[in-house]
Amino acid sequence: MPDPAPTTQPAGVHRLTLADILREHRRSRPQTTAAVDGRVRLTYPELDDRVDRLAGALRSAGAAPGARVLYIGRTSVRFQEILLASARIGAIAVPANWRQSTDELAFVLHDLAPAMVFWQPEPAARELAAARAAADAPERWIRCDGTDDADADAYTAFLRSGDAAPETPGTGADPVIGLYTAAFDGRPNCALLSHDALVAHTAALLRMRAVGAEFTFLNSGPLFHVGTLMFHLAAFHAGGTNVYMHDFDPAEAARLIEAERVDHMFGFGPMLDAIVAANTDGHGRPRHDLSSLRFMRHSPAWDAQITVGTDPWNASGMGGYGQTEAGGMLTYLALGMGGAGSAGRPSPMAQVRVVGPGGAELPVGETGEIVARGPSLFSGYFNRPALNARKMADGWYHTGDLGRREDDGTITFIGPCARMIKSGNENIYPAEVERALTSHPDVAEAAVIGVPDPVWGQSVTAVVRRTPGAALTADQVVEHVRAAIASYKKPRRVVFVDEELPTAGRGPDYAALDAAYGGGGYPGEAGTG
Amino acid sequence: MPDPAPTTQPAGVHRLTLADILREHRRSRPQTTAAVDGRVRLTYPELDDRVDRLAGALRSAGAAPGARVLYIGRTSVRFQEILLASARIGAIAVPANWRQSTDELAFVLHDLAPAMVFWQPEPAARELAAARAAADAPERWIRCDGTDDADADAYTAFLRSGDAAPETPGTGADPVIGLYTAAFDGRPNCALLSHDALVAHTAALLRMRAVGAEFTFLNSGPLFHVGTLMFHLAAFHAGGTNVYMHDFDPAEAARLIEAERVDHMFGFGPMLDAIVAANTDGHGRPRHDLSSLRFMRHSPAWDAQITVGTDPWNASGMGGYGQTEAGGMLTYLALGMGGAGSAGRPSPMAQVRVVGPGGAELPVGETGEIVARGPSLFSGYFNRPALNARKMADGWYHTGDLGRREDDGTITFIGPCARMIKSGNENIYPAEVERALTSHPDVAEAAVIGVPDPVWGQSVTAVVRRTPGAALTADQVVEHVRAAIASYKKPRRVVFVDEELPTAGRGPDYAALDAAYGGGGYPGEAGTG
Repeated sequence: MPDPAPTTQPAGVHRLTLADILREHRRSRPQTTAAVDGRVRLTYPELDDRVDRLAGALRSAGAAPGARVLYIGRTSVRFQEILLASARIGAIAVPANWRQSTDELAFVLHDLAPAMVFWQPEPAARELAAARAAADAPERWIRCDGTDDADADAYTAFLRSGDAAPETPGTGADPVIGLYTAAFDGRPNCALLSHDALVAHTAALLRMRAVGAEFTFLNSGPLFHVGTLMFHLAAFHAGGTNVYMHDFDPAEAARLIEAERVDHMFGFGPMLDAIVAANTDGHGRPRHDLSSLRFMRHSPAWDAQITVGTDPWNASGMGGYGQTEAGGMLTYLALGMGGAGSAGRPSPMAQVRVVGPGGAELPVGETGEIVARGPSLFSGYFNRPALNARKMADGWYHTGDLGRREDDGTITFIGPCARMIKSGNENIYPAEVERALTSHPDVAEAAVIGVPDPVWGQSVTAVVRRTPGAALTADQVVEHVRAAIASYKKPRRVVFVDEELPTAGRGPDYAALDAAYGGGGYPGEAGTG
Repeated sequence: MPDPAPTTQPAGVHRLTLADILREHRRSRPQTTAAVDGRVRLTYPELDDRVDRLAGALRSAGAAPGARVLYIGRTSVRFQEILLASARIGAIAVPANWRQSTDELAFVLHDLAPAMVFWQPEPAARELAAARAAADAPERWIRCDGTDDADADAYTAFLRSGDAAPETPGTGADPVIGLYTAAFDGRPNCALLSHDALVAHTAALLRMRAVGAEFTFLNSGPLFHVGTLMFHLAAFHAGGTNVYMHDFDPAEAARLIEAERVDHMFGFGPMLDAIVAANTDGHGRPRHDLSSLRFMRHSPAWDAQITVGTDPWNASGMGGYGQTEAGGMLTYLALGMGGAGSAGRPSPMAQVRVVGPGGAELPVGETGEIVARGPSLFSGYFNRPALNARKMADGWYHTGDLGRREDDGTITFIGPCARMIKSGNENIYPAEVERALTSHPDVAEAAVIGVPDPVWGQSVTAVVRRTPGAALTADQVVEHVRAAIASYKKPRRVVFVDEELPTAGRGPDYAALDAAYGGGGYPGEAGTG
């Protein structure tokens, strides 16, 4: 009987990397604008040329396949260039949260051991760059002062130094993006996403949001966050246009929406309110025409200025449940509009099960951990073999989130198995803040809860027991945390207690602490993903 | 420096096989009708149960991972069951053209060495089944007499004999469907398509045709042809409904479109005309409401009865360029409506180049061979190592078709590099018919051309030089071919000549033969894919 597997199938024939997509756009969409960033406007062939040069420069600088290329900077076309040049040489681009503290960035640097660091001169990065230069560190630091070649900064000089890159090595299974995510046990981990996973995720998103080559996305959030990055990649995959804002500014957002006929943006409640306020003149009329924006219903004033879609594929079906580790979305509300579950149904690129502690699938209606499988899932965390083994037990990715399958097959997202606070759309893990608190010599014990906040969803409250005799003040506690980790994670309120904190199992008794100090409003409690 | 590749990533976490999709639909769409075939109506859980039992029976009968499961029968839910059961045990389902001659089917059987054959009692299959039974052949033959379990045929008994199947083995890279395609050198070849390729192709099709869970597809063409099969798979992947017709019947098609609210069907010109004729009563009014059908513009009468879409994702953008080996479509007209090229732009799951004889990419505007790469491409032909090496040289699949890249990035399909005749939507390769002709002892030499035909596009003309003294008639020639290969490939006209046929290179001089005997209308000549 002949062997069923063809014996001569070359690996390349199934390949579609991000670099391949860029090259195909060069062929297929020679006149389309790929990127708009301030004065910079690049067509796909122009972007492809710049990426070739940057890839050549990266390779000359010693970035080999599998090398990490770290970006510490704002939302900009420069990250797109760095990402695609990394893709072209088989490297892994990692956009870091530039608002982190110097210590946090130092952890990332140590954890990732990048070959290259592209950085903007913000305080934390500046401090780290100086320290690394003094230490004669092996990685190369390239400073980005602008986004325009006219700025004649180190980035521009570096890019111009490159010759055209050779053909991309590797396969679509190679990781190309790393995103730092959930701080399990107080330590963040870099989730690696392959070309194949990103292409699969984006293919579903193209369907779910009706994305085509006419799609223009306003990159109005951080590119180190999957919420912005997934639409950035969808616009790119479809051959559409990415428009960049370095920092969110509501008046500038309104101007760009009109000028570039933006279809979609990254935004949540307070951002949308700010745009409406900035875009309404003294007579209650809009300054700029925002009607090209097909976005979600939010407030009467917002709805009146934009286009609120009437079908699930437009605006009304936005939502679902997702994670960085799934490339973005695992379920789409659009696939279960009007259903019993708040998170819709799984992406066509994923399988989802709700399982009990032993890993067995639970019956409909029972709450358990959400586990998932499919081509859009990540490749594991960088350099975390033990964590990867635990999170991918039985060949299913264990999300660490609780959910429930409803009678009609839709899914309800309940909340994290481990407690998480959500403030201003940022995830804050109590364990991480607690670790920062207890690193202070005057703190004997600390626990962190989230209390409901009308603007930000939740805000952080720290419950602290001081070491005997210590005169630590609340301001000193807040300042200590702010200096140790990202500012948005610092407590808004500090409650000092004299008794030992209540415990449950190996950690704090959060339920008792919530009851005592007003905790609540955790993600999932309201039934939304 | 740490190793960039996670060391413990289990293979299963990225898997999404056709069997996995079925299981997910069971969870996500417990009330949705998956299939309608005569009196048979199956929800996704019911289909999943039947597939489990059939998979168990197949495994008990000795079908191991990689085994071929041949289906020789009409369009029916039974093929869907056989396909999904094969998927569940890691086998490869191959739907054969049941209209082939006994000799042609015998070739397929010999070529494929299947473990199992499911067959309907049509003359050729009946003859072959009897011969194989007499020869004590190793493969097992299971006869299908109906589509309803009430028919109590061998298929039903076999399915009922199965216990629930264990979990699917293997990965998404394993082939799951084989389709016999182009007869290069007069011999057909079985193109193997993996789960991953089919999922990737379908993901693009979901976007391109706005397919969702509400999508109902009328399987009105043969499932051994990718034109029907790709929409069958799209409806399945989206969690929609497949409706089956065993043979195309225009009045029954109209009845089903109304009864099942069909969105899409397989059909071309003469089929659409037949539906309109059958569905128009003596007063010029439609008998059945066909308005659920979102299909292509065809004739005023057709357009008036169906819904002709107004956006590219509906009906007006249908078209493009495709091949079985690409899982279906390689380019979509919807991605290049109004562009210079007739075939639109590449699928988001493919890269396309136009290359010269040496494999180098040609400049815009020059005609060369279309080569492609991407996740939707096939895994090679079954048991054809030399052909696979040739067709996938340099890691690109060589389509054997000619095309051109236009200034605006769109693609024009020109036609096959090797000549092909298209009659009634069937591909007819002259080499195959010529081989049948010259197997007759009274034929010294023969060449086949296509002549334009108002109904079928083209019809086959054979130019034949008899051996000296032979009294062979045209009827005898036609009968000889009809007995040797599929009837639709037989010549409609035989021209006897006394002189030697003109040659060019190693084959007939087709241009001279076309000029002498009225050849023309070859696919691509009109500029359409």
